[in-house]
Amino acid sequence: MKQTQLSFKTSGRGTYNITPDVQEFVQQQGVQIGLCHIFVQHTSASLMLCENADPQVRDDLETFMSNIVPDGDPMFLHTDEGPDDMSAHVRSILTTSSLTISINNGRCALGTWQGIYLWEHRTSNFTRKVIVTIQK
Amino acid sequence: MKQTQLSFKTSGRGTYNITPDVQEFVQQQGVQIGLCHIFVQHTSASLMLCENADPQVRDDLETFMSNIVPDGDPMFLHTDEGPDDMSAHVRSILTTSSLTISINNGRCALGTWQGIYLWEHRTSNFTRKVIVTIQK
Amino acid sequence: MKQTQLSFKTSGRGTYNITPDVQEFVQQQGVQIGLCHIFVQHTSASLMLCENADPQVRDDLETFMSNIVPDGDPMFLHTDEGPDDMSAHVRSILTTSSLTISINNGRCALGTWQGIYLWEHRTSNFTRKVIVTIQK
Repeated sequence: MKQTQLSFKTSGRGTYNITPDVQEFVQQQGVQIGLCHIFVQHTSASLMLCENADPQVRDDLETFMSNIVPDGDPMFLHTDEGPDDMSAHVRSILTTSSLTISINNGRCALGTWQGIYLWEHRTSNFTRKVIVTIQK
Repeated sequence: MKQTQLSFKTSGRGTYNITPDVQEFVQQQGVQIGLCHIFVQHTSASLMLCENADPQVRDDLETFMSNIVPDGDPMFLHTDEGPDDMSAHVRSILTTSSLTISINNGRCALGTWQGIYLWEHRTSNFTRKVIVTIQK
Repeated sequence: MKQTQLSFKTSGRGTYNITPDVQEFVQQQGVQIGLCHIFVQHTSASLMLCENADPQVRDDLETFMSNIVPDGDPMFLHTDEGPDDMSAHVRSILTTSSLTISINNGRCALGTWQGIYLWEHRTSNFTRKVIVTIQK
Protein backbone atom coordinates (compact mmCIF):
# COMPACT_ATOMS: atom_id res chain seq x y z
CA MET A 1 0.00 0.00 0.00
CA LYS A 2 1.41 3.38 -1.02
CA GLN A 3 0.15 6.61 0.46
CA THR A 4 0.77 10.29 -0.13
CA GLN A 5 -0.74 13.55 1.00
CA LEU A 6 -1.50 16.18 -1.60
CA SER A 7 -2.34 19.83 -0.92
CA PHE A 8 -4.53 22.03 -3.06
CA LYS A 9 -4.92 25.75 -2.65
CA THR A 10 -8.47 26.76 -3.46
CA SER A 11 -9.53 30.26 -4.40
CA GLY A 12 -13.17 30.28 -3.48
CA ARG A 13 -16.15 28.07 -4.17
CA GLY A 14 -15.88 25.90 -7.23
CA THR A 15 -14.55 22.66 -8.66
CA TYR A 16 -10.87 21.86 -9.16
CA ASN A 17 -9.76 19.10 -11.52
CA ILE A 18 -7.32 16.90 -9.60
CA THR A 19 -7.31 14.04 -12.13
CA PRO A 20 -3.73 14.71 -13.34
CA ASP A 21 -2.34 14.77 -9.78
CA VAL A 22 -4.05 11.51 -8.88
CA GLN A 23 -3.18 9.72 -12.12
CA GLU A 24 0.46 10.77 -11.82
CA PHE A 25 0.74 9.21 -8.34
CA VAL A 26 -1.02 6.05 -9.52
CA GLN A 27 1.28 5.65 -12.52
CA GLN A 28 4.37 6.05 -10.35
CA GLN A 29 3.37 2.94 -8.37
CA GLY A 30 3.38 0.58 -11.34
CA VAL A 31 0.22 -1.16 -10.13
CA GLN A 32 -1.55 -3.02 -12.94
CA ILE A 33 -4.70 -4.05 -11.08
CA GLY A 34 -5.72 -2.31 -7.89
CA LEU A 35 -7.67 0.43 -6.21
CA CYS A 36 -7.06 4.13 -5.68
CA HIS A 37 -8.58 5.73 -2.58
CA ILE A 38 -8.84 9.51 -2.27
CA PHE A 39 -9.78 11.11 1.04
CA VAL A 40 -10.38 14.78 1.83
CA GLN A 41 -9.62 15.70 5.45
CA HIS A 42 -12.24 18.43 5.67
CA THR A 43 -15.99 18.82 6.21
CA SER A 44 -16.59 21.82 3.97
CA ALA A 45 -14.92 20.55 0.79
CA SER A 46 -15.70 17.29 -0.96
CA LEU A 47 -14.88 15.07 -3.91
CA MET A 48 -16.78 14.02 -6.99
CA LEU A 49 -16.51 12.15 -10.23
CA CYS A 50 -18.05 14.41 -12.84
CA GLU A 51 -18.41 14.88 -16.54
CA ASN A 52 -15.10 16.34 -17.72
CA ALA A 53 -15.82 17.82 -21.15
CA ASP A 54 -18.30 20.66 -20.77
CA PRO A 55 -17.60 23.14 -17.95
CA GLN A 56 -21.29 24.05 -17.94
CA VAL A 57 -21.99 20.74 -16.20
CA ARG A 58 -20.05 21.95 -13.18
CA ASP A 59 -21.65 25.40 -13.43
CA ASP A 60 -25.04 23.69 -13.36
CA LEU A 61 -24.04 21.63 -10.33
CA GLU A 62 -23.16 24.88 -8.53
CA THR A 63 -26.53 26.32 -9.50
CA PHE A 64 -28.31 23.20 -8.28
CA MET A 65 -26.50 23.23 -4.94
CA SER A 66 -27.05 26.96 -4.46
CA ASN A 67 -30.77 26.40 -4.94
CA ILE A 68 -31.15 23.37 -2.73
CA VAL A 69 -28.80 24.58 0.04
CA PRO A 70 -28.93 28.38 -0.03
CA ASP A 71 -26.15 30.24 1.76
CA GLY A 72 -27.48 32.03 4.81
CA ASP A 73 -30.71 30.04 4.94
CA PRO A 74 -32.44 31.26 8.12
CA MET A 75 -33.19 27.66 9.13
CA PHE A 76 -29.49 27.18 9.93
CA LEU A 77 -28.23 27.85 13.47
CA HIS A 78 -24.51 27.22 12.85
CA THR A 79 -23.48 30.53 11.35
CA ASP A 80 -20.24 31.37 13.19
CA GLU A 81 -18.10 31.59 10.10
CA GLY A 82 -20.63 33.29 7.85
CA PRO A 83 -23.45 32.43 5.46
CA ASP A 84 -21.40 29.84 3.50
CA ASP A 85 -20.42 27.87 6.64
CA MET A 86 -23.37 25.55 7.24
CA SER A 87 -24.27 25.29 3.55
CA ALA A 88 -20.71 24.02 2.94
CA HIS A 89 -21.23 21.23 5.49
CA VAL A 90 -24.52 20.20 3.89
CA ARG A 91 -23.01 20.22 0.39
CA SER A 92 -20.18 18.00 1.66
CA ILE A 93 -22.66 15.51 3.14
CA LEU A 94 -24.69 15.40 -0.10
CA THR A 95 -21.55 14.61 -2.11
CA THR A 96 -18.66 12.61 -0.59
CA SER A 97 -15.44 12.85 1.44
CA SER A 98 -13.82 9.90 -0.28
CA LEU A 99 -13.67 8.16 -3.63
CA THR A 100 -12.41 4.69 -4.43
CA ILE A 101 -11.56 4.13 -8.08
CA SER A 102 -10.62 0.90 -9.84
CA ILE A 103 -7.06 0.74 -11.20
CA ASN A 104 -6.56 -1.14 -14.43
CA ASN A 105 -3.51 -1.13 -16.71
CA GLY A 106 -1.64 1.07 -14.26
CA ARG A 107 -4.16 3.90 -14.27
CA CYS A 108 -7.44 4.87 -12.61
CA ALA A 109 -9.97 3.17 -14.86
CA LEU A 110 -12.05 6.28 -15.42
CA GLY A 111 -14.71 6.24 -18.09
CA THR A 112 -14.22 8.53 -21.09
CA TRP A 113 -16.22 11.35 -19.51
CA GLN A 114 -15.17 10.95 -15.88
CA GLY A 115 -12.90 13.44 -14.13
CA ILE A 116 -11.90 13.64 -10.47
CA TYR A 117 -12.80 16.98 -8.88
CA LEU A 118 -12.17 18.59 -5.53
CA TRP A 119 -15.19 20.72 -4.72
CA GLU A 120 -14.49 23.74 -2.53
CA HIS A 121 -17.74 24.76 -0.85
CA ARG A 122 -16.46 27.79 1.08
CA THR A 123 -16.34 31.16 -0.63
CA SER A 124 -12.89 32.14 0.67
CA ASN A 125 -9.44 30.60 0.11
CA PHE A 126 -8.25 27.40 1.78
CA THR A 127 -5.50 24.82 1.59
CA ARG A 128 -7.18 21.43 1.31
CA LYS A 129 -5.38 18.23 2.23
CA VAL A 130 -6.13 15.07 0.30
CA ILE A 131 -4.69 11.63 1.11
CA VAL A 132 -4.25 9.23 -1.81
CA THR A 133 -3.74 5.54 -1.07
CA ILE A 134 -2.93 2.92 -3.70
CA GLN A 135 -3.59 -0.79 -3.22
CA LYS A 136 -2.53 -3.67 -5.41
CA MET B 1 -6.96 -8.77 -5.98
CA LYS B 2 -9.38 -10.06 -8.61
CA GLN B 3 -11.06 -7.76 -11.08
CA THR B 4 -13.70 -8.13 -13.77
CA GLN B 5 -15.73 -5.82 -15.96
CA LEU B 6 -19.46 -6.42 -16.21
CA SER B 7 -21.78 -4.86 -18.79
CA PHE B 8 -25.45 -4.09 -18.27
CA LYS B 9 -27.87 -3.06 -21.00
CA THR B 10 -30.32 -0.56 -19.62
CA SER B 11 -33.69 0.19 -21.19
CA GLY B 12 -34.44 3.65 -19.89
CA ARG B 13 -34.46 5.31 -16.53
CA GLY B 14 -34.85 3.03 -13.56
CA THR B 15 -33.09 0.70 -11.16
CA TYR B 16 -31.55 -2.64 -12.12
CA ASN B 17 -30.79 -5.26 -9.49
CA ILE B 18 -27.18 -6.38 -10.00
CA THR B 19 -26.87 -8.24 -6.70
CA PRO B 20 -26.81 -11.73 -8.30
CA ASP B 21 -24.06 -10.74 -10.77
CA VAL B 22 -21.89 -9.27 -8.01
CA GLN B 23 -22.46 -12.11 -5.53
CA GLU B 24 -21.64 -14.71 -8.22
CA PHE B 25 -18.27 -13.07 -8.93
CA VAL B 26 -17.52 -12.78 -5.20
CA GLN B 27 -18.34 -16.43 -4.54
CA GLN B 28 -16.10 -17.56 -7.40
CA GLN B 29 -13.09 -16.00 -5.64
CA GLY B 30 -13.39 -18.07 -2.45
CA VAL B 31 -12.59 -15.06 -0.26
CA GLN B 32 -13.79 -15.53 3.32
CA ILE B 33 -13.02 -12.05 4.66
CA GLY B 34 -12.53 -9.14 2.33
CA LEU B 35 -14.01 -6.25 0.45
CA CYS B 36 -15.94 -5.95 -2.79
CA HIS B 37 -15.59 -2.71 -4.73
CA ILE B 38 -18.03 -1.82 -7.50
CA PHE B 39 -17.34 1.09 -9.84
CA VAL B 40 -19.52 2.51 -12.61
CA GLN B 41 -17.53 4.15 -15.43
CA HIS B 42 -20.20 6.73 -16.26
CA THR B 43 -21.47 10.09 -15.01
CA SER B 44 -25.17 9.63 -15.78
CA ALA B 45 -25.73 6.27 -14.10
CA SER B 46 -24.93 5.43 -10.50
CA LEU B 47 -25.03 2.76 -7.82
CA MET B 48 -26.99 2.35 -4.63
CA LEU B 49 -27.70 -0.03 -1.81
CA CYS B 50 -31.47 -0.03 -1.43
CA GLU B 51 -34.32 -1.87 0.21
CA ASN B 52 -34.83 -5.01 -1.87
CA ALA B 53 -38.28 -6.26 -0.88
CA ASP B 54 -40.87 -3.69 -1.94
CA PRO B 55 -40.47 -2.27 -5.48
CA GLN B 56 -42.43 0.79 -4.36
CA VAL B 57 -39.33 1.95 -2.47
CA ARG B 58 -37.51 2.33 -5.77
CA ASP B 59 -40.57 3.91 -7.38
CA ASP B 60 -40.61 6.43 -4.54
CA LEU B 61 -36.89 7.16 -5.02
CA GLU B 62 -37.63 7.92 -8.69
CA THR B 63 -40.45 10.24 -7.64
CA PHE B 64 -38.22 11.98 -5.12
CA MET B 65 -35.42 12.49 -7.65
CA SER B 66 -37.83 13.70 -10.34
CA ASN B 67 -39.11 16.31 -7.92
CA ILE B 68 -35.79 17.51 -6.60
CA VAL B 69 -33.97 17.44 -9.96
CA PRO B 70 -36.64 17.99 -12.63
CA ASP B 71 -35.72 17.07 -16.20
CA GLY B 72 -35.47 20.16 -18.37
CA ASP B 73 -35.22 22.55 -15.44
CA PRO B 74 -34.62 25.97 -17.07
CA MET B 75 -31.80 26.69 -14.58
CA PHE B 76 -29.62 24.14 -16.40
CA LEU B 77 -27.36 25.30 -19.23
CA HIS B 78 -25.97 21.89 -20.25
CA THR B 79 -28.82 20.63 -22.43
CA ASP B 80 -27.03 19.24 -25.50
CA GLU B 81 -28.40 15.74 -25.15
CA GLY B 82 -31.90 16.65 -24.07
CA PRO B 83 -33.87 17.39 -20.90
CA ASP B 84 -32.62 14.26 -19.04
CA ASP B 85 -28.92 15.06 -19.63
CA MET B 86 -28.04 17.45 -16.83
CA SER B 87 -30.56 15.96 -14.38
CA ALA B 88 -28.81 12.62 -14.87
CA HIS B 89 -25.47 14.16 -13.87
CA VAL B 90 -27.00 15.71 -10.74
CA ARG B 91 -28.71 12.44 -9.76
CA SER B 92 -25.36 10.66 -10.14
CA ILE B 93 -23.63 13.15 -7.87
CA LEU B 94 -26.37 12.87 -5.23
CA THR B 95 -25.99 9.08 -5.18
CA THR B 96 -22.60 7.42 -5.87
CA SER B 97 -20.29 6.08 -8.58
CA SER B 98 -18.81 3.39 -6.38
CA LEU B 99 -19.74 1.07 -3.54
CA THR B 100 -17.45 -0.87 -1.24
CA ILE B 101 -19.12 -3.76 0.56
CA SER B 102 -17.71 -5.98 3.31
CA ILE B 103 -17.19 -9.64 2.38
CA ASN B 104 -17.81 -12.19 5.10
CA ASN B 105 -18.18 -15.95 4.76
CA GLY B 106 -17.43 -15.73 1.04
CA ARG B 107 -20.27 -13.34 0.20
CA CYS B 108 -21.04 -9.62 0.26
CA ALA B 109 -22.23 -9.15 3.83
CA LEU B 110 -25.45 -7.40 2.86
CA GLY B 111 -28.10 -6.85 5.47
CA THR B 112 -31.39 -8.71 5.04
CA TRP B 113 -33.01 -5.83 3.18
CA GLN B 114 -30.03 -4.57 1.18
CA GLY B 115 -29.77 -5.04 -2.58
CA ILE B 116 -27.19 -3.65 -5.01
CA TYR B 117 -28.76 -1.57 -7.77
CA LEU B 118 -27.47 0.11 -10.90
CA TRP B 119 -29.49 3.27 -11.37
CA GLU B 120 -29.87 4.40 -14.99
CA HIS B 121 -30.66 8.11 -14.99
CA ARG B 122 -31.01 8.63 -18.75
CA THR B 123 -34.34 7.96 -20.42
CA SER B 124 -32.92 6.10 -23.42
CA ASN B 125 -30.99 2.81 -23.68
CA PHE B 126 -27.33 2.42 -22.77
CA THR B 127 -24.71 -0.22 -22.11
CA ARG B 128 -23.20 0.51 -18.71
CA LYS B 129 -19.79 -0.79 -17.73
CA VAL B 130 -19.16 -1.74 -14.11
CA ILE B 131 -15.80 -2.86 -12.71
CA VAL B 132 -15.90 -5.24 -9.74
CA THR B 133 -12.74 -5.71 -7.68
CA ILE B 134 -12.36 -8.24 -4.87
CA GLN B 135 -9.78 -7.90 -2.10
CA LYS B 136 -8.85 -10.42 0.55
CA MET C 1 -7.35 -7.89 6.67
CA LYS C 2 -9.06 -7.68 10.06
CA GLN C 3 -12.81 -7.46 10.41
CA THR C 4 -15.25 -6.99 13.27
CA GLN C 5 -18.94 -6.35 13.65
CA LEU C 6 -20.06 -3.60 16.00
CA SER C 7 -23.60 -3.06 17.28
CA PHE C 8 -25.12 0.26 18.22
CA LYS C 9 -28.45 0.72 19.98
CA THR C 10 -30.14 3.82 18.67
CA SER C 11 -32.88 5.68 20.51
CA GLY C 12 -34.68 7.48 17.74
CA ARG C 13 -33.64 9.70 14.88
CA GLY C 14 -30.33 11.46 15.26
CA THR C 15 -26.57 11.17 14.92
CA TYR C 16 -24.36 8.94 17.07
CA ASN C 17 -20.63 9.54 17.31
CA ILE C 18 -18.90 6.20 16.64
CA THR C 19 -15.40 7.67 16.22
CA PRO C 20 -14.06 6.22 19.50
CA ASP C 21 -15.32 2.70 18.67
CA VAL C 22 -13.76 2.79 15.21
CA GLN C 23 -10.46 4.31 16.33
CA GLU C 24 -10.12 1.75 19.12
CA PHE C 25 -10.45 -1.15 16.67
CA VAL C 26 -8.01 0.50 14.27
CA GLN C 27 -5.40 1.06 16.97
CA GLN C 28 -5.65 -2.57 18.12
CA GLN C 29 -4.48 -3.72 14.68
CA GLY C 30 -1.17 -1.86 14.76
CA VAL C 31 -1.49 -0.82 11.12
CA GLN C 32 0.69 2.16 10.25
CA ILE C 33 -0.52 2.80 6.72
CA GLY C 34 -3.80 1.40 5.52
CA LEU C 35 -7.51 1.86 5.06
CA CYS C 36 -10.48 1.53 7.37
CA HIS C 37 -13.80 0.52 5.81
CA ILE C 38 -17.06 0.97 7.70
CA PHE C 39 -20.27 -0.59 6.41
CA VAL C 40 -23.81 -0.29 7.79
CA GLN C 41 -25.99 -3.31 7.03
CA HIS C 42 -29.24 -1.34 6.84
CA THR C 43 -31.17 0.85 4.40
CA SER C 44 -32.71 3.28 6.90
CA ALA C 45 -29.56 4.28 8.79
CA SER C 46 -26.40 5.66 7.24
CA LEU C 47 -22.90 6.97 7.90
CA MET C 48 -21.29 10.36 7.58
CA LEU C 49 -18.13 12.27 8.25
CA CYS C 50 -19.24 15.49 9.87
CA GLU C 51 -17.98 18.50 11.76
CA ASN C 52 -17.38 17.27 15.32
CA ALA C 53 -17.15 20.47 17.41
CA ASP C 54 -20.50 22.24 17.30
CA PRO C 55 -23.59 20.03 17.83
CA GLN C 56 -25.66 22.65 15.99
CA VAL C 57 -24.10 21.44 12.74
CA ARG C 58 -25.83 18.09 13.21
CA ASP C 59 -29.03 19.79 14.32
CA ASP C 60 -28.93 21.82 11.12
CA LEU C 61 -28.38 18.67 9.06
CA GLU C 62 -31.52 17.20 10.65
CA THR C 63 -33.43 20.36 9.82
CA PHE C 64 -32.18 20.28 6.24
CA MET C 65 -33.14 16.64 5.77
CA SER C 66 -36.55 17.14 7.37
CA ASN C 67 -37.22 19.92 4.91
CA ILE C 68 -36.00 18.19 1.78
CA VAL C 69 -37.44 14.76 2.63
CA PRO C 70 -40.50 15.38 4.83
CA ASP C 71 -41.85 12.43 6.80
CA GLY C 72 -45.22 11.34 5.49
CA ASP C 73 -44.87 13.20 2.21
CA PRO C 74 -47.99 12.21 0.24
CA MET C 75 -45.87 11.52 -2.87
CA PHE C 76 -44.53 8.36 -1.17
CA LEU C 77 -46.32 5.04 -1.70
CA HIS C 78 -44.15 2.89 0.61
CA THR C 79 -45.72 3.72 3.97
CA ASP C 80 -46.10 0.30 5.62
CA GLU C 81 -44.02 1.15 8.65
CA GLY C 82 -45.21 4.70 9.14
CA PRO C 83 -44.37 8.23 7.99
CA ASP C 84 -40.64 7.91 8.75
CA ASP C 85 -40.20 4.73 6.68
CA MET C 86 -39.70 5.99 3.14
CA SER C 87 -38.05 9.23 4.22
CA ALA C 88 -35.46 7.11 6.06
CA HIS C 89 -34.65 5.25 2.83
CA VAL C 90 -34.25 8.50 0.90
CA ARG C 91 -32.02 10.02 3.61
CA SER C 92 -29.84 6.89 3.48
CA ILE C 93 -29.46 7.17 -0.29
CA LEU C 94 -28.56 10.88 -0.06
CA THR C 95 -25.81 10.12 2.47
CA THR C 96 -23.92 6.78 2.39
CA SER C 97 -23.92 3.17 3.59
CA SER C 98 -20.15 2.94 3.76
CA LEU C 99 -17.10 5.04 4.48
CA THR C 100 -13.48 4.32 3.64
CA ILE C 101 -10.98 6.34 5.66
CA SER C 102 -7.20 6.53 5.23
CA ILE C 103 -5.13 5.10 8.09
CA ASN C 104 -1.90 6.87 8.90
CA ASN C 105 0.31 6.45 11.99
CA GLY C 106 -1.96 3.71 13.29
CA ARG C 107 -5.14 5.80 13.34
CA CYS C 108 -7.89 6.92 10.99
CA ALA C 109 -6.36 10.04 9.46
CA LEU C 110 -9.33 12.26 10.22
CA GLY C 111 -8.98 15.98 9.81
CA THR C 112 -9.18 18.12 12.95
CA TRP C 113 -12.91 18.69 12.56
CA GLN C 114 -13.97 15.30 11.20
CA GLY C 115 -15.97 12.82 13.26
CA ILE C 116 -17.55 9.53 12.20
CA TYR C 117 -21.29 9.42 12.81
CA LEU C 118 -23.96 6.77 12.52
CA TRP C 119 -27.14 8.49 11.43
CA GLU C 120 -30.35 6.83 12.57
CA HIS C 121 -33.16 7.93 10.26
CA ARG C 122 -36.04 6.05 11.90
CA THR C 123 -37.87 7.66 14.81
CA SER C 124 -38.02 4.51 16.96
CA ASN C 125 -35.26 2.40 18.53
CA PHE C 126 -33.09 -0.04 16.61
CA THR C 127 -29.94 -2.10 16.95
CA ARG C 128 -27.70 -1.20 14.02
CA LYS C 129 -24.94 -3.50 12.83
CA VAL C 130 -21.76 -2.00 11.44
CA ILE C 131 -18.89 -4.01 9.95
CA VAL C 132 -15.41 -2.50 10.25
CA THR C 133 -12.63 -3.87 8.05
CA ILE C 134 -8.98 -2.84 8.33
CA GLN C 135 -6.49 -3.23 5.50
CA LYS C 136 -2.77 -2.73 5.57
